[in-house]
Amino acid sequence: MIVLGIDPGTAATGYGVVTDHSGEPRGSLSLVECGVIRTAPRDGLSVRLCGLYDEVRAIIARHKPDVLAIEDVFYAKNVRTTVVLGHARGVVLLAAQQSGMRIAEYPPAEIKKTVVGAGAATKEQVQFMVARLLRLKSAPQPTDAADGVAAALAYLLTARVPRLERVR
Amino acid sequence: MIVLGIDPGTAATGYGVVTDHSGEPRGSLSLVECGVIRTAPRDGLSVRLCGLYDEVRAIIARHKPDVLAIEDVFYAKNVRTTVVLGHARGVVLLAAQQSGMRIAEYPPAEIKKTVVGAGAATKEQVQFMVARLLRLKSAPQPTDAADGVAAALAYLLTARVPRLERVR
Repeated sequence: MIVLGIDPGTAATGYGVVTDHSGEPRGSLSLVECGVIRTAPRDGLSVRLCGLYDEVRAIIARHKPDVLAIEDVFYAKNVRTTVVLGHARGVVLLAAQQSGMRIAEYPPAEIKKTVVGAGAATKEQVQFMVARLLRLKSAPQPTDAADGVAAALAYLLTARVPRLERVR
Repeated sequence: MIVLGIDPGTAATGYGVVTDHSGEPRGSLSLVECGVIRTAPRDGLSVRLCGLYDEVRAIIARHKPDVLAIEDVFYAKNVRTTVVLGHARGVVLLAAQQSGMRIAEYPPAEIKKTVVGAGAATKEQVQFMVARLLRLKSAPQPTDAADGVAAALAYLLTARVPRLERVR
């Protein structure tokens, strides 16, 4: 199971690819790649969307993830920013759908709650828990990358619950 | 000069393709095609975005427009609806950018002002003026299609102004 987590943004989109080797007894979650897709603020929105789409397609081609776990963007305070984010999220969803991936969407607070245990966790707390859950020597940098990884973890940790319950 | 006008929506996206035969003495604007791209409400957002993207790409392949004229969506009252619209608009901008088209964006009121003469024009007034400017026997149906055509006309009528001024 390979999950691509994405924290969409227009200037910077964080992403993380996490695998779950379910066959192994423990420590089965591992980080494959994470980073940030940046687009140039001086470019027009359509040019930036094109760059974001191409990068996401390249990540999908590289790792062939089964699932896209992505933050919802319906909760921001500034309408204009949120709508621009909607554009970015639209091309990410398009790229995932074109590759036949399953798509899971989470409100930011739910991702934090699953990964850190608190819906109002700080970015630093998310970085810390991401590093801990994946046994990394240092936290993913910058925080956008950690947020992308956290989205992937939210899917994998949530998807595990029914499995554990069945074992009991 | 071929212009593709688009009025983005998630359920229904209106479009119109209009040409400007600048060499001809008068009546040089003509409608090539207009219609509505519909997606199924029962499908998930990503499936609908994929359908919209494919249809827009098909229209671009068919007519090879030079310009995309598209409504801004930053002015709606309902945030959630506007953000979902942002997703749709994102994949339309992506398709246009991938084809190297010039992109012109207009607030809805500016399109109405240019085509009808009043920023608060009704949908029926837009239909009427679209039919009149393009010498159509009947108004484009439904109103979404007329709104797509109106966006294309807004570009062509605005682009003409400097040309006329130079003639004077």
